[in-house]
Formats: sequence, C-alpha cells, structure tokens
Amino acid sequence: MPDHFQLLATDTAGGTAARRGRLRTRHGVIETPIFMPVGTQGTVKAVTPAQLREIGAQIILGNTYHLNLRPTSELIRDLGGLHTFMGWDGPILTDSGGFQVFSLAKLRDIREDGIAFQSHVDGAKLFLGPREVMAIQQNLGSDIAMVIDECPPWPCERDACARAVGRSLRWAKQCRDIAADSGFLAAGHHVFAIAQGSTFDDLRREAAESLAALDFPGYAVGGVSVGEPEPEMLKQVGATTPFLPADKPRYTMGLGTPPQMLKMIALGVDMFDCVMPTRVARNGLAFTPDGPINLRNEKYRADPRPICEGLDNYTARFSRAYLRHLATTNEMLGGTLLSMHNLHFFLDLMAQARAHIEAGDYAGWHRAWIARYEAGAAERTAK
Amino acid sequence: MPDHFQLLATDTAGGTAARRGRLRTRHGVIETPIFMPVGTQGTVKAVTPAQLREIGAQIILGNTYHLNLRPTSELIRDLGGLHTFMGWDGPILTDSGGFQVFSLAKLRDIREDGIAFQSHVDGAKLFLGPREVMAIQQNLGSDIAMVIDECPPWPCERDACARAVGRSLRWAKQCRDIAADSGFLAAGHHVFAIAQGSTFDDLRREAAESLAALDFPGYAVGGVSVGEPEPEMLKQVGATTPFLPADKPRYTMGLGTPPQMLKMIALGVDMFDCVMPTRVARNGLAFTPDGPINLRNEKYRADPRPICEGLDNYTARFSRAYLRHLATTNEMLGGTLLSMHNLHFFLDLMAQARAHIEAGDYAGWHRAWIARYEAGAAERTAK
Repeated sequence: MPDHFQLLATDTAGGTAARRGRLRTRHGVIETPIFMPVGTQGTVKAVTPAQLREIGAQIILGNTYHLNLRPTSELIRDLGGLHTFMGWDGPILTDSGGFQVFSLAKLRDIREDGIAFQSHVDGAKLFLGPREVMAIQQNLGSDIAMVIDECPPWPCERDACARAVGRSLRWAKQCRDIAADSGFLAAGHHVFAIAQGSTFDDLRREAAESLAALDFPGYAVGGVSVGEPEPEMLKQVGATTPFLPADKPRYTMGLGTPPQMLKMIALGVDMFDCVMPTRVARNGLAFTPDGPINLRNEKYRADPRPICEGLDNYTARFSRAYLRHLATTNEMLGGTLLSMHNLHFFLDLMAQARAHIEAGDYAGWHRAWIARYEAGAAERTAK
Repeated sequence: MPDHFQLLATDTAGGTAARRGRLRTRHGVIETPIFMPVGTQGTVKAVTPAQLREIGAQIILGNTYHLNLRPTSELIRDLGGLHTFMGWDGPILTDSGGFQVFSLAKLRDIREDGIAFQSHVDGAKLFLGPREVMAIQQNLGSDIAMVIDECPPWPCERDACARAVGRSLRWAKQCRDIAADSGFLAAGHHVFAIAQGSTFDDLRREAAESLAALDFPGYAVGGVSVGEPEPEMLKQVGATTPFLPADKPRYTMGLGTPPQMLKMIALGVDMFDCVMPTRVARNGLAFTPDGPINLRNEKYRADPRPICEGLDNYTARFSRAYLRHLATTNEMLGGTLLSMHNLHFFLDLMAQARAHIEAGDYAGWHRAWIARYEAGAAERTAK
C-alpha cells in the first residue's frame, strides 16, 4: 500500500463499497470521504480562509484555467505559490483547466499535443497541453495536480469517445512523466489521473485499467455531471470504480448534491468538489437535513430559528428572518453567512459519513439520510 | 457632570478644543473620539460582527429610514431588537431617518408634524415625525437615538434656514418629551439633539444654545457635508461646538475623510460615522498614512507588501498583489478584506488621536499626520 493513502475501514460487511481513508499531502492530512470547497479564482467566494478553517475545511480546490488567465501562474509562483498568495496553508487540489476549456473557452481546436482556444475574458489565443498544465500546477504549488484530459460531451458517439479515452491516456502518461522528471512527484506533490469513457462501460473499464497500470497517486472519474440524468451518472461511476486501484484515493469532479455524494461514497468514491453550495448561497438557498430551503421565501420573514439544528457555526447565531433580510436586500453578508453554512453542511455530512463507515452502519444510515432529505424537498416543492 | 459622559482630558494647553472622553451606554462604554462603522440595513456591508470586534469597533450605526422600510422596526422588535437581530452586542446609534428622507425619498412634503414622503424602494406613501422616529428607534432598541430634524440644503436662503432651525427645535423638544414619557431615557437609552443653521453663524449659535437648554444626553452638528466646500464645513462646525455643553458628547453626522475627522476633533467633536471607508473598499480603494491608494492600479500587480505597515489585522496577511487580483476579478472577498482594512484604519486613527490628546501633543501630531497624508495623496495624483 502506498504510504500517502491509508484505507482505514471499508463497508464490505455493510454491503456497500464505501471507504474511510486518510490522504497525506505536503500541507497536511485529509480524512476521506471529503468535500473540497472550490476557490476558482484564488478565493472561495465570499469566505475568508480563517472562516474556512472555522467550519472544518481540510482541503480546497483552485482552478488552473482561471488562475492562469488572471493573475497568471507565473505571478503566483513569484509571490510564493498559491498557498501564500491566497492565505490558505492547508492542502490545495488544482484541476488541469481542461474541463473549463471545454465549458468556457471559445473556438477550441483539439490537437495531439493539447488544446488551442481563446480566453473567455479577453479572447486571447491560448494553448493547454500536458506540458503547459503541469508547468502551471507546478507554479501554483498544488498539493494534488490533475492531468489534462479530453472530456467527451453527453451524449457522445462511441468512436469519438474511444478517441477521447485514447488521447486522455496518452496525455495522462505525458503528465506523469513530466511530474516525475521535474521532481514534482518526488517532492511529495500528487498527480491524479482522470478516467473518461462516457456511457460505455467497456471504455470506462479500459480507461480505468490502463490508467491504473501507470500507478498514479490517485484517480478521478471524469466526464460525469455533464448533462446526463442522475441514474446514468451513477451507472458511469459504478462502471469505473471497481477497476481503479483499491489503495488509491478516488475523486469525482464537480459533484454533487448531498444525496449524490452519499450514493457515490457507497460506490467507493472518496473525494468531491462542487461550486454549487457557494453559488446557491449567493441566491439565498440554504441546505438542511430536510432538503434545501429558499430563504427569500416570505414564510421565513419572522422566523427566529437558525437555518437548521445541530450545525455549530457562526451562521447558526443568526435567525432565518435575519438571513432572509440580508438575501432580499442583496447584502454581501448574506452570501458570506450562507456560504459558510452550506459549506459547513457539506463538510459535516462528510464527517457523518466517515463516522458511519467506521461504525459499520453506512448502508442504512445513508439511505435514511437521503430519504429524509428527499421527502422534505418533495414536500416543499408540492406546496 | 452627567454620569453617562466623562471628560477625561482636554487639549486646552495644546491650543485646540480636542477632548478625550468616555461615553456609557446600555451596551457598553465608548472611548472618544470614536469612529462608528455604518450598518445601514442591519449589516456593516461585507463584514461580520465578529470581524468588527476583531478590528476594535466599539459602536456601530444603523439607519432608521432603511430598517423601517425593510424589514420594518416592528419585526426587529419582535425578534428581540436590532442588537439580537444583527448579532452585534455592542452599542448601536441610529439616526432618525430624516436625512435619508431628504436625500433618498421622493415627493417630500414637510409639515409641522413631520415629513410625508414616498419610499425609494417601492413608492409607498410614508410619514416620519417626532412620534414615528422615536417609536421606530424604541423598537430597534437603539443605545443612542437621534431626533428628527429638518436639514436645509447648501446653499440655503437665510429665511428658509431660520424656519428649519425653528422647526428642528420644536421637533427635538417633542422627541425628548416622548423619550421621557415612554421611559426610554430612564432605561438608559440616550437621545441626541441636532443643531442646524447652515452657513449662518448666528443661527448655528441660536440652535446650539436653545437645544443645550433642553439638556439632551448628547448633541450633533447637523447639515454639514451636504455639498459645501471643506473650509465652509469646518467653519460651520467651529460656529456650533463652542455653544454646545462641554460636558456632553458631540457628533458630526456622515463624516468624513481622515484629515477632516482630525480637524474636527481639534474643533471639539467626539464622534463620527461615514459609509465612505466601506463604500470605497468595494471599489478597490485602501487608506494608508500616505493617502488612499487604488489597488486596481497596474503598479500593484506584483507588490508583495501589505497595504500599509503598522495595522495588525487579518487583511494585513495578504499582499497588495492578491488584493488587486480580488479587486480586478470583482471577488466579494476583496470587498470584505478592504472593508476590514479601511474600517480598522479609521478606528486606529481615532485610537491614535485619543493617545495624543492624553499625551498633550494633539495639535502638532494631527498637523503632521495630515501633512504626510496630503503630501502622499498629492504626489500620487500628480503622477
């Protein structure tokens, strides 16, 4: 077993593939399963690093695509790396920027050595390939760097998907070689591979197995949550995780709702990130064990209660009525307090999941948790 | 000497009218001279109450006009008052809403019993007179409530100004009687009167003396910073303070720049409030002892230094380069960190002023401070 990842417990007896793990990085240890708040542009929106610590964040995510456009990875390197730049001394995972090239940039041209595209900010002509994304993530000082991959759309033709899987494999190997040659891996930085394959089980298996053979420090299931229905998404994750090495951490990128995360943990996933909890916070949405509630709703106008019971954080000192007032008057403090609440809700859910995997009752617990959450959400929708 | 205000030191020997005082309120003691961060809508924009404590805020301001429109003072009363509602357990001063009626509302009609106007939010027909503003501020639970007054514009005809002074005096007396009859004063809340008079020295004196005769717990110099040049503003303050009781705190509303505050302290003013430090923070402007700097400027792109030396706060952990990045990418965290810095700068300046009044060298110190600040600002403008 590699010394950077320890598998502390599995839920085999409980009938799920859930895992309780511990991942070591250059900036500290991460207890898995874990949710990673997203700091796209060098800040988790509306929240200070001190507030992230307060709510128990263990690792945050930075976006290579955005940071490379502004303020550039060279400037961040010259100022001491991303940790120093943004005042966060815990672990940081960065994506490769590839996904944003597909979702944000204009006029893409996918070539064998990488992707040419235009900046969504100012239209500047740019290029990202294995060499570029590894240099950028080295400049940033990422604790966990992601390889660049080709993310096929959903739905996708089998031939196009097979070509994307092949290209992603070649790029992954190049990224790994660059990280080995530059001393990035030896210095304790991790590089995670990404298994694509869209809806084709055999391509998913092929991608997972060939990447597993390259012995990466960790693996992501890519190409999910790109528009497909949830059952299809879970099917794709379930078609990938069995073929990833059991002794390496597993990560699904850009996911998900609380029930989705719990279902994916049951499929053997260890790591999640998503902008959703902070994005919806800025629109007045708050997560509760009975589903999300929209604090702009008139029914909370005079509600003296905190958002929900059992979450001990700064936001819990304020009433729903006050948070509604901030949301309806578009006060920035509303975005800050709801972001803290939502992130803490996600982080606390992962802490509960870890405890239940350790206790051996994850299967029943996660089904009951999801049932309550979905029942509350359905009741609210029906009203 | 009334027991709620102690005059600890004066700068008579130093040749200025500066005063070092201590004002007791229901929610704690305020050391004067003091700057009060403004929380217009029940929040100091972009900053949590915990962060306000961190930077040494002693008292904050709430706006009656805004809070009465949304979420209404009755709702705030039902939820335990403004302190509980917004999570701030220190002193709160509220204005009467009169000034906002003049500056924000539409279709005003000034009558002997108050002002009829339309809400700037939804056009609703509203009315504020002595009875209404005292009821609202009682609902809010203000530690320091302000009387309603008629604020003449600048410039203003003498006859119109004399009428405004007369009406303001009658309203002030009504506010005081209401606060006495309702037990508001006996419960330890303070009510401050406001002396108007525009540019007419004799009217200023008349306003100050007749309000002084009514024995209010404190006094504001009103009708300044309404468009007049700075020398005219200082002249008006200087024409008022000598006729206010020496043993009561004095407040100039809605002011000012750092040099203006220091000059007004020299004229015997004890309390200030202004939205400017937080408003300009959200546009990337930061205060320094060498004048304000605009962090959006390209010259700070790679600047690893904090905004300025000697201010020990959370923002000081971040480089100008990072703060510039946040400002140019319009990240909310930029508004938060710069608001904390600017407010701390103002609060710290008041702490320095207090120390120099105590040390007996206020006159020389404040002239040197202003000279450095203005020289830096001028040099930057000339570039």
